[in-house]
This record gives sequence, C-alpha cells and structure tokens, in this order.
Amino acid sequence: MAKKIIVIGGSAAGPKAAARARRIDQEAEITIIQKDKDLSMASCGYPYYVAGFFDDRNMLLAAPTGVVRDPKYFINAKGITALTETEVIEIDRKAKKISCRNISTNERLVLSYDKLIIATGALPKLPPVKGLELEGITTLQSMKDADYLRKIRDDAQIKKAVIIGGGLIGIETCEALELAGIDLTVIEMLPQLLTFLDWQLAKIVENHVKSKSANVITGNGLAEFLGKDGKLVGVKLTNGTELPCELAVVAIGVKPNTSIAANAGIEIGETGGIVVNEKMETSDPDIYAVGDCVELKNLITGKKTHAPYGDLANLEGRVAGENAVSGGNATFPGTIQTGICKVFDFSAGVTGLSETAAKKAGFTDIETVVNASPDKPGFMTGKLLVSKMVVEKKTGKILGLQCVGPGDVSKQIAMGAMAIMGGLTIDRLVNADLPYAPPFSLAIDHFIATSHIMQNKLAGLMHGITAAELKELVDKKEDVYILDVRGPDEFEEIRLGIGEVLIPLGALRNRLGELPQDKNKPIVCFCKISLRGYEAARLLEWKGYTNVRVFEGGIMAWPYQREK
Amino acid sequence: MAKKIIVIGGSAAGPKAAARARRIDQEAEITIIQKDKDLSMASCGYPYYVAGFFDDRNMLLAAPTGVVRDPKYFINAKGITALTETEVIEIDRKAKKISCRNISTNERLVLSYDKLIIATGALPKLPPVKGLELEGITTLQSMKDADYLRKIRDDAQIKKAVIIGGGLIGIETCEALELAGIDLTVIEMLPQLLTFLDWQLAKIVENHVKSKSANVITGNGLAEFLGKDGKLVGVKLTNGTELPCELAVVAIGVKPNTSIAANAGIEIGETGGIVVNEKMETSDPDIYAVGDCVELKNLITGKKTHAPYGDLANLEGRVAGENAVSGGNATFPGTIQTGICKVFDFSAGVTGLSETAAKKAGFTDIETVVNASPDKPGFMTGKLLVSKMVVEKKTGKILGLQCVGPGDVSKQIAMGAMAIMGGLTIDRLVNADLPYAPPFSLAIDHFIATSHIMQNKLAGLMHGITAAELKELVDKKEDVYILDVRGPDEFEEIRLGIGEVLIPLGALRNRLGELPQDKNKPIVCFCKISLRGYEAARLLEWKGYTNVRVFEGGIMAWPYQREK
Repeated sequence: MAKKIIVIGGSAAGPKAAARARRIDQEAEITIIQKDKDLSMASCGYPYYVAGFFDDRNMLLAAPTGVVRDPKYFINAKGITALTETEVIEIDRKAKKISCRNISTNERLVLSYDKLIIATGALPKLPPVKGLELEGITTLQSMKDADYLRKIRDDAQIKKAVIIGGGLIGIETCEALELAGIDLTVIEMLPQLLTFLDWQLAKIVENHVKSKSANVITGNGLAEFLGKDGKLVGVKLTNGTELPCELAVVAIGVKPNTSIAANAGIEIGETGGIVVNEKMETSDPDIYAVGDCVELKNLITGKKTHAPYGDLANLEGRVAGENAVSGGNATFPGTIQTGICKVFDFSAGVTGLSETAAKKAGFTDIETVVNASPDKPGFMTGKLLVSKMVVEKKTGKILGLQCVGPGDVSKQIAMGAMAIMGGLTIDRLVNADLPYAPPFSLAIDHFIATSHIMQNKLAGLMHGITAAELKELVDKKEDVYILDVRGPDEFEEIRLGIGEVLIPLGALRNRLGELPQDKNKPIVCFCKISLRGYEAARLLEWKGYTNVRVFEGGIMAWPYQREK
Repeated sequence: MAKKIIVIGGSAAGPKAAARARRIDQEAEITIIQKDKDLSMASCGYPYYVAGFFDDRNMLLAAPTGVVRDPKYFINAKGITALTETEVIEIDRKAKKISCRNISTNERLVLSYDKLIIATGALPKLPPVKGLELEGITTLQSMKDADYLRKIRDDAQIKKAVIIGGGLIGIETCEALELAGIDLTVIEMLPQLLTFLDWQLAKIVENHVKSKSANVITGNGLAEFLGKDGKLVGVKLTNGTELPCELAVVAIGVKPNTSIAANAGIEIGETGGIVVNEKMETSDPDIYAVGDCVELKNLITGKKTHAPYGDLANLEGRVAGENAVSGGNATFPGTIQTGICKVFDFSAGVTGLSETAAKKAGFTDIETVVNASPDKPGFMTGKLLVSKMVVEKKTGKILGLQCVGPGDVSKQIAMGAMAIMGGLTIDRLVNADLPYAPPFSLAIDHFIATSHIMQNKLAGLMHGITAAELKELVDKKEDVYILDVRGPDEFEEIRLGIGEVLIPLGALRNRLGELPQDKNKPIVCFCKISLRGYEAARLLEWKGYTNVRVFEGGIMAWPYQREK
C-alpha cells in the first residue's frame, strides 16, 4: 500500500523533503500542509526584493524555469498535494493523525500519516517593550513582511526608519531600506554588529555601513516604541535617547517554532529546537523534523545549536524526505555554522568558530591571525579582504575563518568550510593547490597567505598584536615604540596617528641607529597590510630586540579612527 | 659565519625562495642571478597586459605598494643582491661554485655557495617545422614577448593572426588578441582545446570562443610557416589548408629548462623536470630546485608530473628558501593540478583528474557526472555553470572536478580542490555546510547539487547518458525514445532537434499513454539542465520502463549544434 507522508510547512525544508520523497517513491501519497498562501518562498531573497534588485515578486516563488510553485505546480509536476492557507492544530501521535483547519473557510480536516515531517520553521523574536502594537513596526520574516516593506519602498513616503538588531537580517534589511532612500539607524544592544564575527572584523563592517550614511548605534538597546494615534513616531533607547521614525524593523533573531511538536509531546532540546538524530528523526520514530524548527549538532564543538540557515534546511529536508519513504539510512551530520551576508559593497562571512565562539566553547589552546590583502593583483583591480583564522594549536586544524571586505569573501569562506569539513591542518593549507590565474586570485591566494602567517606565528617566527591590543597600549600611554615601515607617500596619504615613527622598510637597514637603545623595549611594526611590517620585525629581532610584535593586518585591519 | 645562498632565476619561484630565506635568516648572504633585465615578473599577467586590461607595464613588475622590484628594491627592502642580465654558465658542484657571465658587459664572475636554489623555469616548446625563423612568429613566455605583442596591439597594424596551440596560454592569448581587434584563428592538433578538460566541457568552451568571432580549428596541426621576404605571410596546416596571417603565436606548451642542472649531473626525471624530494632538494643535497624546471608528485595518481603553475612555483620557493637557510624540514607535498583560465566571458577550471586523466592513470572504478545550473538564483541574475565531477566508487572520494561557463567557476574549483585535499567523500559533500545567501549562491549550491546527482547515480537512482553517447545513438539511428520534458515555450525558444518528443513534466503523469508500449525500449529524458529530466525518469522507472536514462546536464551541456 502507498505510504502516507505528511509534511507540515511549505517554505524551504518542507517542499524539499516532499520532493525528495517523491523522487525516491513514486507511489507514496505526499501532502504538504502550508499555513501561508504562498509555497516554496525564497525567503533569503526578501531583502533583495525589498531593495529593488528585482521587481517581480513571483521570482521569489518560481522554479528556475519561471513557473510559480503553487499547488497546481506541485500536483502536476511532482504529484504532491499542497494544502495552502491550512493550519495544523494538533498532532495525534497515537492515532497517527493530524487535525487541520483551513484559515479562510475554517473547514476542519483530519489526515492520517505513516510518516510525518515537521518543518514549521522559526518565529521572529519580539522585544518585550511597550508599543509593539503600533502601526509601522514589522519584521522581515514572511512574504507578507516582504510585501509590506516593498510597498513602503515603492510608495517612497517614509523618510526615517530604525532597525532593531544588527545581526544578519538586520544588516541585510539596512541595505535594502538604505537603497530605498530611507534615512536609517541600526540599533544593536551588544557592543558590535554581526556577532558571528569577532569584534575587530565586525567593526570594519560597521565602518562600511556608516560610510553608506546609515547610522549605527551599538551597546544600546531598545526601551520603548513611541506612538501617536496608534502610529509609530519614534523609538526610545535604554540610555534615554529618542529617535524619531515612522518605520521600525525588528530583527533581533528567531526562535524555533515548536508549539505543535511540543504539544504532541515530542522532545524539545536545550536550545529550544526539536531534538533530532542524524536521520532527522524526532523522539517519535514516525516523525521527522527539519529546518529552522530543529536543533543541530555543531560538528566542531559537539554541542547542540540552533542554525536557521536556508541551505541547511534544504539538505535536512532531503534527508528526511528520503528516510520517510525508504526507512533508509540517509543522514545529515550537523553544521559548522557557515554563513555570509552582503553589506552594501562588502561581504561578511564566517565558517566554523570565531575566536569568541571558540573560547566560549572551551577551546583554550588556540592561535588566531588577522590577514589583509587584495583578492587579486592590482593590475586586475583586486579588492581588499580582511580575514581572521582560528586554529587549534595541538592539532594544527583550522577551527574557523572569518572574512570581510569588498573582495571575494564568498570564495574564501567556501574554501574555509571545505577545509574544516576535511579536517585540514595548517601544514597542509600552506601548500594548498588552488585555481590561480590573475583574473581570479593572487599568485599566493589570500587564503594561503593567511595560512602562511598562521604557520609563522605557530613557529614563533612572528609575534602578533591585534588592533585592540595596540589601541589599549596607546590609550594607556604605555611605553611602546610604534614603527610604520611604509613609504613617505603612503604616510602622507593615510596614517594612524598613534605616535608612530616612519622609517620605510627600504631604509631601515641603514637607519637602525634611530631605533630605541633599549633592546627590551616593546616595538610594534606595521605597514598597510603588515607584510613589510613582518619583514621589519624579523630584522629587528635579528638585531637583538626581544619584544617585537607585528600589528596583524596593518592599517587595512585598523577598525578605529585614523589621523588621516 | 653567514650562509651563502645563491638562487638561479628571478621570476617567481626564485625571488620567493630568496625572500623566505631572508625572513628566516637575516645574516645569510643571498644572491639572485637573473638572465633577464626584469625581476619578479607577474608572468601569468602577460595576456592581460597584451589585451589592454591595464597599460602600465610596471604593474607586472611592482610589489603591491607600486614599487618596481628591481635590484635596488631587493637590496634595500630585503637585503638581497640581485644580479640581472646575468647568465649562469656552469655549476661546479664539487667546489660549490657557479660561473656566470654578464650578458651586456660579457664580464665573468665566479660565486661560491653553501646552498644553491635552481629556479630556471621552463622554455616554450617550438614546432619542428619550416619557417620558424620568420619575422612575425613569437611565443608569450617572456616579458619581451609581452612587450612585442603589446606593441602590436597598440600599433593596430596587424589584421590577421594565428595561434598555434589551444591550451591555457593559447586561449588566454586568443582573448588578448581578439580584444586587440585582430582577426584570429586558433589551431589545435588534438581534437579539442584545453586538454585538462574532458571533451564535452572543452567543446562548450570552444563554442564560446567561436561566438566571440575567433576561428577555431581542432584536429589539425601546423605543417609549415609561410614567408615572404623574411616575413610571415601565412601558415600551412597538415591537411593542406593555408591561412594567411602576419602574426603567429606559438603556444604548444613548455618544457622544463634544465640544461644547467643536467650539465652539472643533477638527476633529471622521466618527465624532463629536475627530480626533487618533498624538501625540494635535488639529487645533490646542497642544491634545491623549484618552479617550472622541476617535476612534482601528483598526489592523486602518485605519478610524477610537470606542473608549471605560478602559484605552485611560489609555494615551492617558500619551502626551498626556508630549508636552504635552516636545514629545516619544510615540505611541499606535490600537486593535484588545479588550474583555471579566463576565456572571454567564460572561465574554465579543473582540479584533480578529468575522466580522461583518471582513466589514463589507471583508475577503472570511477563514476562521473555532468551538472548544469546557475551559480545564483535567477532573481540575483545567476550565470550558468557546467561541471563534471569524477569520483572513485570504492571509496566515494572525489578525484576531480571540472567546471566551465560564465558563472563563478573559480569558487567551484577552489571548493573542489579543498575537498580533494581533505579526502572528502560524496557522502560528506552532499551535506556540505557552505556560505549561502542569494547574492552568492543557490540555496543548494551548484557544488552540492553536483554531489547530489553523483550520490543518486552511485545509489542507482539515476542512470545517466552523456551528450556524446546520446549523439552517437542519434547518429547511428538507434531505436531510442528521446523525451524533452520542458514547457512548450522553452521548446519553441531552444531545441535540440534530434527527434525528441515534447511532453512537459507537468503533463507527463496524464500522458503516459503516449509513451512506447515496449517497456524495455531505451528512453532518454532531459530538460534544460535535466533536473526535470531526472524526475521524469524516476516516474517512468516506476511505471515499469527498464531502460531509462537521463541526459546529464541537459540542453545547457549539449556541445553540438542545436536545431534552434
């Protein structure tokens, strides 16, 4: 007899599970229950629709061929029944039935299943403050939200907006509304945007956001939405600041949408997501769960995590769909939490652990490095990349890579992700055989150069100092000799202005007499990206200086204000 | 006492070795002997200089700061002596001395070394035909060649040129001269361009080259250069064709430049390159060799190979430079032969083994797959990628990846390279955690989708047929039912015209009666990229058809002429 497969949820993971189930089993009766009117929404594309990168809303709903994935498409092309505007009220696990309700007709429906796949997604977190009911407050979580914000863009009436939350969706929304010509402020309670990045790299992104004339306030939370006649007129921050605005987008994160599962007694994990094994089975072996409603294993820390990413949702769906019809052994091992976002002319990406995340997860034996360089040769108009790599010292394995800048961040992070999945060590990565030609990379790719610097640090050839550490020395007026080894022209054009002395690398061998007499005095060398800074440090160490450090990444990785 | 390090060769590997030696050892006396006038030339950038991507010749010779890397730069910034226009005549290994000659002054010089690093590069192969001495024949191997061709571009006098050889440099030169407005023909003796690709993908690139109005002749070699008054006026091919031209660029490959090493009794390997171990030591432990003059281990086949790539030259140089001063244990393990080139609006890349290379190396237990898809969603203006993956069946390990098209080939190949280096298997790659956001990739990245198709093939869910196999069936008028499952609009716009029947996937479930009665009749399903073709095949197999295959990659991977 044909198996009855029911999928609750019709966004990403659900339709993928249904489609995979169909490809494995042509006989199964497969039904998708979807609360919204739309199906298979490319929800990660909402910000780009709002921003006006494209105008046809259907492009978010269409298969690559341009056909909108509506119930007719699902039944004809895939033999899958999709019930839209239908809400699941209850799962009766004993009877293996679900009760549903059609939202527009209020019609009730009871369906029985052999295997059930829960793909209920995530819900936006909302701040527990006054005024949340005011008109002019939204999230960017649903197609309806996207329609609402796109209309605001097209109407061009709203002048001021505030975005609550400087995470991935907050920043993507910031770009979208800025491109719509709205005067914007991003508010983040924590001291930095994009907490998947370490502070220094996040700050470089923040500087870029500000350069696009968006205002950014960090370290200050939302206290209250201010209204008049039921409409939003401003927000009040925890420090008392009031910002007038007609629109607020709340983007403070999402939480797994698990109420239906929890009500049915399915196990919910410590992170709030549905517990699943590698087969995507819940605590009930006839019920699978996939997508933003589950918790996953972080493959580096071994700990459970909530990883609401559209790409993983699809991969999980594929596994559950196969297992539901075949009783098979398809597995999804977990996540290394790879992510990326576009931030105006920058991209910001991460794979694996940041330094902060590594320390939080209990990794104590780590080394980090910051590297700045163009992604391609100057003659092919290379663009800047700033990377930070985290390595486990004992094993030499790469634990994480972050990268920001106008250059090809996506490729760096993709390589980092593959390197982590393959358990590659620094000793292997320093000799990586990558696709080189000048239109695509430097002769020594930025990734390899980052690995070289890491290898040098691990071997004790280079002693690094971060921007934050250097800034602290300067602020505390510590007795440190700061040596800029760039050329005079470069010094005229851009300079830190933190009391540094300029001796160009080419002149350093002949001007060693100008250096401090005290060979134990702390010295920090740098240049634009600190390659010359490293060479200078090697020279000074040979000359007997015992406390020489290289400011990692150089001026290009300096996140603070410069003199010029 | 300070170690004496001599480096023969000042292009890529040599200066890198010298620089690394200096960073490790500030006392060593380091000397580079360079035959040319220029040093540290970015030789992979020559085609882009010739093409006019940039005009300042010095950009090929400059450090990222813009300073030209001349002898003054080397001594000031790095404390390295560079003797240019100096030719090494002989290595006296017993005395540990080299004899040199200044090319302009004819002055002789004998220098002693503790460690010698040979980085003499490669020489262009020249065809053994008549007329090679004619004016108007060049290679694109040296800065002098680049200057010559750039002048031809700038003078805009030459109207017709022929490129002998359709490999990487031939194709890059083709683009450069085409952009210079010269009427071009590329001649390749073998049946395809870019032999690092399998035929089908190479043919797709060839079609693109032709679409740019360059003429391509494959399977036909050069017989003779035709001259008049000492000047080139044409070329004659082995089949008798004569092509008038005023310029010919010979790009039939390079061979290791090993005469100095061989004369000194240093071991030369089966491929013609200097034999080195992982420390880059030659058969003489006081002499290292690096770059295009050595042979390397192919890490997949275990066999020796000549891999003249600029990126590897740098990495080898770094290892030899360190070992020469430290007597250390730095190692360079070998190559997986990753490469890429820009071909007008396409890129073409490879890492690891093509199917041809795998079979040649004795891998019999392999599976291959061709996948075509955009690199990004349609709403972010994704561009086509066509990939071919080769996997070892027994282990599931990826052996190679090729990719061509206007999309982001470079990232695909970089990921493939990391996956090969990490020994990743298909079972892992199907769940790869990659950086996803719509500006950067599909929700299921092209690489992962390629892996999914491979997994389906390995699991027997999909039976593939290549373009070449399908073409052969058609040409032989075999009794095969060819089923195009796209929509009628798509069929009107583009179609193969090989006798296919159109039944859109969405209608197939209701029109099964139109299919052949004979359930054993061979059926081939396809669509634009064969995702729908795969779904159709799954349906037909369920209906009892026993001989259903999917044309891999679909119309986008069809390298032959189409009806429309």
